[in-house]
Amino acid sequence: RTLRIGLIPGDGIGREVIPAGRRILEALPSSLNLNFSFVNLDAGFETFQKTGTALPDKTVETLKKECDGALFGAVSSPSTKVAGYSSPIVALRKKLDLYANVRPVKTTAGSSNGKPIDLVIVRENTEDLYVKEERTVEGPNGKVAEAIKRISERASHRISTIAGEIALRRQGIRDAAPGTSSHSQPMVTITHKSNVLSQTDGLFRETARAALAAEKFSSIHVEEQIVDSMVYKLFRQPEYYDVIVAPNLYGDILSDGAAALVGSLGLVPSANVGDGFAIGEPCHGSAPDIEGQGIANPIATLRSVALMLEFLGEPNAAAKIYTAVDANLDEAKFLSPDMGGNATTQQVLDDVLKRL
Amino acid sequence: RTLRIGLIPGDGIGREVIPAGRRILEALPSSLNLNFSFVNLDAGFETFQKTGTALPDKTVETLKKECDGALFGAVSSPSTKVAGYSSPIVALRKKLDLYANVRPVKTTAGSSNGKPIDLVIVRENTEDLYVKEERTVEGPNGKVAEAIKRISERASHRISTIAGEIALRRQGIRDAAPGTSSHSQPMVTITHKSNVLSQTDGLFRETARAALAAEKFSSIHVEEQIVDSMVYKLFRQPEYYDVIVAPNLYGDILSDGAAALVGSLGLVPSANVGDGFAIGEPCHGSAPDIEGQGIANPIATLRSVALMLEFLGEPNAAAKIYTAVDANLDEAKFLSPDMGGNATTQQVLDDVLKRL
Ligand SMILES: CC(C)[C@H](C(=O)O)[C@@H](O)C(=O)O
Ligand SMILES: CC(C)[C@H](C(=O)O)[C@@H](O)C(=O)O
Repeated sequence: RTLRIGLIPGDGIGREVIPAGRRILEALPSSLNLNFSFVNLDAGFETFQKTGTALPDKTVETLKKECDGALFGAVSSPSTKVAGYSSPIVALRKKLDLYANVRPVKTTAGSSNGKPIDLVIVRENTEDLYVKEERTVEGPNGKVAEAIKRISERASHRISTIAGEIALRRQGIRDAAPGTSSHSQPMVTITHKSNVLSQTDGLFRETARAALAAEKFSSIHVEEQIVDSMVYKLFRQPEYYDVIVAPNLYGDILSDGAAALVGSLGLVPSANVGDGFAIGEPCHGSAPDIEGQGIANPIATLRSVALMLEFLGEPNAAAKIYTAVDANLDEAKFLSPDMGGNATTQQVLDDVLKRL
Repeated sequence: RTLRIGLIPGDGIGREVIPAGRRILEALPSSLNLNFSFVNLDAGFETFQKTGTALPDKTVETLKKECDGALFGAVSSPSTKVAGYSSPIVALRKKLDLYANVRPVKTTAGSSNGKPIDLVIVRENTEDLYVKEERTVEGPNGKVAEAIKRISERASHRISTIAGEIALRRQGIRDAAPGTSSHSQPMVTITHKSNVLSQTDGLFRETARAALAAEKFSSIHVEEQIVDSMVYKLFRQPEYYDVIVAPNLYGDILSDGAAALVGSLGLVPSANVGDGFAIGEPCHGSAPDIEGQGIANPIATLRSVALMLEFLGEPNAAAKIYTAVDANLDEAKFLSPDMGGNATTQQVLDDVLKRL
């Protein structure tokens, strides 16, 4: 099987980590019978400055017509308001209907200091406040701006369904390798704020409850948690959680919180998943403070490559990458500066490649 | 001076901690020349079940006409949707125009394991998604619900101004007692998500920037942080932060996150502050799991009493309470179960009273 992968480095350290993602795909053992071809695509703030658009049509069209999946690096947010600029990754998620943003957060055997964390945040990726329908009016007391938070039954249903499927798949992996996880049963925690937003978050909550009540999910323990308590609990007992499903904005916030628990955003991958398409994307940003120094942590990208492969139906290739990355972290010899080490991006990558 | 205080225990452990709040007011040394009178007021889910409204008009009217301040316990959120029920504390904040929700989070000398945390979250308390303007339509693919997120220049300006004033006041206290804090300069961190919500959160950001650029705030170091990064940073380096100002919902989420850092929600107070009025409110909820056992931690309420007194212009009385509470925590002999101890609400209260 040959997979064609779009490479969208974006801005800042995106340009340093996406090449590492390409390298690991090229280095996968031939026994997997997987081949890759690549196409470089533009997006980001620099693209905006050059061309007036942060997400050229060509990028979207090429992804749609030619590609099986893609890797997205990071984009810089301008530090002051720039007319006409709008985040290309948010737009891409909507244009390709990549409705699930999947963000696993996990300690490795060697890196956990006490509590083994092994959870995944399944974030709705197309609506909520991210519909970006805003308006501003000039009133007697100054400006008043409004934004729409939209929650649909359809999007809530499909995100909850994929959360349930992920919970079952994770349990399958645990069953196949007993003793590797603290979870004994699949669990999904529904996050919302329906005590204030009874209609929007109320709809998310009810729809998630209904979706997860399906017969095929009968082995899943379903709980819910109000978003503020969820952040509290996530910090107090992260080891308790398995799959957390959340509307877009809460998912955004929760995944950064969870990343803090495992030490660095530089470790946390994500995949933007739609039907038959997936974009791997490290959770970190463009990191202007370390840009160009060759010291960005490539782990989040390497894990995002694995996650993309999982959703493209290649779990064995994904498992190879996860195992190599975990071994690098457990040995802790080649770690990038965000992890307290002094290895370069290239050295971390080489160490992982050697373990493939 | 005599202050009349409304007591609104609400539901669950609210009924166990609010009496402790009353007791500490009554026990303040007479040298402070402060007297208190009290009026008991209803609100909450049980009130709703009895009367059909969670916030009776009488409660609002009595607060407006008779009271100088109030203490609010906690309310239960129904576990399924209940027609007509709506959170009384959210309504009270709006009806009394208590536009600032002030939530200090602080380790005591004895309780910090390494990093001394001393920050305060200043949360806008009247708008954002809490305007609760929602609607639901039935579309071809099922229900679609929408909520309005409203951000006004006026509310953003006044919350940023009070955040600046709090930063200066905190610096004044630090200057008077050098060596008690890790902060050397007042700092305000503006939290928003203007990279996605350019108009609403953009307006909050710009207005906060403008308000904090006022001459009287020239000694304040002003920074900003996107809300997801803010949660990440809050976990990674909480000791860095001084005053964090945020729109309503982000403030709600951030304050629970910060509470997790100091060990228990049972320690964290809040005050709902308007012009000339303040309601002290522990950050924890009604805690149905421990209700009726007499083991709720009263510290959050005692600190909320102090915070209320600060905003009613009685900093000396407030300081007495803070000092007594800190001494209880530092000695760590009478701690409630949430803190790993086995003292009852009454025992913790008695220990604090003895130190007044
Ligand atoms: C850059 C930003 C628009 C984006 C988001 O909010 O989704 C980022 O925080 C993320 O989590 O991917
Ligand atoms: C109970 C709920 C409505 C409330 C809020 O969201 O403001 C609570 O979480 C708080 O922080 O006081």
